[in-house]
Amino acid sequence: MKLAVCQEQGSAGDAAGALARMRRQALAAAEAAAALVIFPEMFLTGYNIGEAVFSLAEPADGPSAAAVEKIARDSGVSILYGYPERSGHRIFNSARLVHPGRGAIANYRKTHLYGREEKKLFAPGDGLVMAEVEGLKLGILICYDVEFPEAVRTLALAGAELIAVPTALIQPFDIVARTLVPARAFENQVYVAYAGLCGREGNLGYCGLSCIVGPDGLDIARAGAVPTLLFAEIDSSAIQEGREANPYLADRRSEIYAALVKAVGPPSSK
Amino acid sequence: MKLAVCQEQGSAGDAAGALARMRRQALAAAEAAAALVIFPEMFLTGYNIGEAVFSLAEPADGPSAAAVEKIARDSGVSILYGYPERSGHRIFNSARLVHPGRGAIANYRKTHLYGREEKKLFAPGDGLVMAEVEGLKLGILICYDVEFPEAVRTLALAGAELIAVPTALIQPFDIVARTLVPARAFENQVYVAYAGLCGREGNLGYCGLSCIVGPDGLDIARAGAVPTLLFAEIDSSAIQEGREANPYLADRRSEIYAALVKAVGPPSSK
Repeated sequence: MKLAVCQEQGSAGDAAGALARMRRQALAAAEAAAALVIFPEMFLTGYNIGEAVFSLAEPADGPSAAAVEKIARDSGVSILYGYPERSGHRIFNSARLVHPGRGAIANYRKTHLYGREEKKLFAPGDGLVMAEVEGLKLGILICYDVEFPEAVRTLALAGAELIAVPTALIQPFDIVARTLVPARAFENQVYVAYAGLCGREGNLGYCGLSCIVGPDGLDIARAGAVPTLLFAEIDSSAIQEGREANPYLADRRSEIYAALVKAVGPPSSK
Repeated sequence: MKLAVCQEQGSAGDAAGALARMRRQALAAAEAAAALVIFPEMFLTGYNIGEAVFSLAEPADGPSAAAVEKIARDSGVSILYGYPERSGHRIFNSARLVHPGRGAIANYRKTHLYGREEKKLFAPGDGLVMAEVEGLKLGILICYDVEFPEAVRTLALAGAELIAVPTALIQPFDIVARTLVPARAFENQVYVAYAGLCGREGNLGYCGLSCIVGPDGLDIARAGAVPTLLFAEIDSSAIQEGREANPYLADRRSEIYAALVKAVGPPSSK
């Protein structure tokens, strides 16, 4: 299965512009025979929009969602994209997966909110989400989520072959894209697709550095600092080979990890 | 607190030679005012000794252990070292921590055994171990253990400021030393000291690449492929600063990690 990762600039509140760019990139992904294209976190509105999120957020089946479904149908490519989701009085930082034939097949709400600003604007999601596209099992995470080894491990244990991550990595945290993301791929023997923003939005500069990393922890494709469409062939047999060489999932000692699920704070946190 | 990490060649069954090298390196660490020096996995006997481990293993308080205690007293430096431990009919791949004044203060038995050979030779340990040296809280892991994010996280949640890792990293797994070890430091905001073998022992070539990584995920010191004594100043305030910048421990969502402690195999393992 061919996968595309779209690194783009933030939309700074311009949903119509974001949808136009999404259409262009989905058609380019279709041209290259990709079955799935992943867009960044909050791609429809931009990430750094502050309290404008309260007016720009839409329900999971709102007008922008319908526009994305049309792009998926027109291009024939599945689309995973980030957007602010309105649900009653709450706003979630969400990612939605749309299939050209099956329509909306998954909606994930970011579970690990980053920093004071996100915690002020968004409600946290309450669970992880798996989906299947063209026979490939994928788990969805958003940005900060993937920095938690527990989140990726949970998805890998549930059978994920690909961890699909809309993101908006803020400077200077290059280490996340260059070290943590490859570590997640290697330690779980999964593909990780990290689709991020680049350029600037207001006072925030983004790292870019979107990537597709293989189950061996090595980059298959990596962007720099400008808009880029990355491609990789996803091959389930590479996952199996990785797990034979380094059987991390089989060699886990779950009986000694009890502290991981206890709701206690860290010993020296604020 | 000043920490030393000793990268050395394997001992290939020569315990007397290993003790002589340990004495030399502990005195060099003392000369540099280090309070703790960490030696590789199975340092007393060499790692690649096959079934010779059944004759070379000693109890945790055996003659080699007494010799290490004398080196700690003579040098005034605490010593963490790997050795094969005999306990009744079982052999463990262990690491023991000896203090110049307090004697043996910790003994850890490797919990994640690597590959068919280790599983044939050793019994697995049944729990993680914390200790304290000069006010610094450290967790002990051995080689393959540190590749499991669950193990390091469990120790970080228990208050570890330093993860001390005797190791014997086999070629071609440079990615463990270069990517996984820095990821563990960054994602937990702890120091990680990775003290490995270099050179060859029989049919195995070791990576070297011993390192001391800071809570920011960056190398403080790193060895190449030859015997080396590395040093780093351990500063608890760097841990606190890291946790304020990226509060991973505080931002965990333990209520959604339940699958991590279920004793189920992976979906696609052998």
